[in-house]
Amino acid sequence: MKLVRFGASGAETPGLIDAEGRIRDLSAHLPDLSGAHLHPDALARLAGLDPASLPLVEGNPRLGPPVAGTGKFICIGLNYADHAAESGMEVPPEPVIFMKATSAICGPDDPIVIPRGSEKTDWEVELAVIIGTPAKYVTEADAMSHVAGFAVTNDVSERAFQTERAGQWTKGKSCDNFGQLGPWLVTPDEVADPQDLGMWLTVNGERMQDGSTRTMVYQVPFLIHYLSQFMTLHPGDVISTGTPPGVGMGMRPQRFLKPGDVVELGIDGLGRQRQDVIAD
Amino acid sequence: MKLVRFGASGAETPGLIDAEGRIRDLSAHLPDLSGAHLHPDALARLAGLDPASLPLVEGNPRLGPPVAGTGKFICIGLNYADHAAESGMEVPPEPVIFMKATSAICGPDDPIVIPRGSEKTDWEVELAVIIGTPAKYVTEADAMSHVAGFAVTNDVSERAFQTERAGQWTKGKSCDNFGQLGPWLVTPDEVADPQDLGMWLTVNGERMQDGSTRTMVYQVPFLIHYLSQFMTLHPGDVISTGTPPGVGMGMRPQRFLKPGDVVELGIDGLGRQRQDVIAD
Repeated sequence: MKLVRFGASGAETPGLIDAEGRIRDLSAHLPDLSGAHLHPDALARLAGLDPASLPLVEGNPRLGPPVAGTGKFICIGLNYADHAAESGMEVPPEPVIFMKATSAICGPDDPIVIPRGSEKTDWEVELAVIIGTPAKYVTEADAMSHVAGFAVTNDVSERAFQTERAGQWTKGKSCDNFGQLGPWLVTPDEVADPQDLGMWLTVNGERMQDGSTRTMVYQVPFLIHYLSQFMTLHPGDVISTGTPPGVGMGMRPQRFLKPGDVVELGIDGLGRQRQDVIAD
Repeated sequence: MKLVRFGASGAETPGLIDAEGRIRDLSAHLPDLSGAHLHPDALARLAGLDPASLPLVEGNPRLGPPVAGTGKFICIGLNYADHAAESGMEVPPEPVIFMKATSAICGPDDPIVIPRGSEKTDWEVELAVIIGTPAKYVTEADAMSHVAGFAVTNDVSERAFQTERAGQWTKGKSCDNFGQLGPWLVTPDEVADPQDLGMWLTVNGERMQDGSTRTMVYQVPFLIHYLSQFMTLHPGDVISTGTPPGVGMGMRPQRFLKPGDVVELGIDGLGRQRQDVIAD
């Protein structure tokens, strides 16, 4: 099942994608795709609906992030060995965690907004995991039972804010429109192997990132287990699992986004995003 | 005005403190003290109510955090010069920002829960600022107009998780029950000078922290201005502004919390907290 939220920012309506790729309106069945509605029973009820019975959504509405009310937007740093190398850093002995502000989350095709004073706004295609049931001290074996679905995310990053402006990466990770999520929340039954998904990102049509979740250092079940040792993961929380090589910071010379650029990115089976880059 | 949320965790009712220090039930006037209800106009409406006309709440109910649905729990690191010194770190050239998970937020007298595997759970009394209106690229002069109120917070911190477990402090800052907030949201009209508030913390009755917001390096208006250059601050967001000297990590020998300890803390005019320390 592919779940979406469509409509104006802050006023999205829940929907699902039918077999023809069209949006069907779910608002008669649930108020929104927030964490409270991502429980396996709730998802099973949605999966039991006949899409043809749901109102067809006409046109091409804006898509919002496919989950509402995310409480935590947790990211894993340096989780692809070759990305760590291009960043000039070692693969860490255990996962590096950082937080993006949840206010950075936006729709998959919403613009990348370059903050005032930024000279180093960069891209990162990542596999996002969306939590469906509370997870605390869970085992690796049990971890995947807490997953409601997967999505594409762009972990947009301002490298000077992140690393040259005194301590802690969050400063360069949390700007408005620095977390495109979607287009869909894809339920696990449609993702045969989350550790074997091709992923890519282009800038103005030029391929920058071309990787696979196969080369993730710490894989999804371990990450859920690991994070749950430190804090309860709640329904609607998003874990972004790191980026493969090909970010602008790692290029020689370095290359960063400027207004007018177009970024496109995608992951096998999880859809694609397209963002105009604009100045704030 | 002193606003509270009382009742069971996750099902709190909004209230205010009357002149006799008793809780009055505000639930006939607003559904909850979430960000949407912290706008100056909304607060002015509450201030215009006659407390005697509101139902008196009997007994001593549990207090929750005085704001619901916080989107960001942003902390400022090393923001008291003498605390930086005791931590063996320099005062940073600009504010250090880190995030605590919002799932760490709990009521002022909720227990400090020592996570499994922790040996270095520590305390930090801090002045919290609660945002009332959206703030983006605001000037220092305009910053305080975005403040709904102030509160006490305990920025509970696991020092090994924070600094010995690979990158980024958030890992040691985000555990469940690591962010006691309250007892009250105190509106700015009742805080003559937020930069002249005594603050203290005891463990088992022994005074550990004894400071004043006077010695903050980066003061509240600057912090709001500064943060708003990186991200929009939204109503209900909480900024915890750093801790004065006297944390366990800074003692020789170091001293950390253990089950059975009792932590009490407070800030002039903003009330006090009391926490039992328990194991998870």
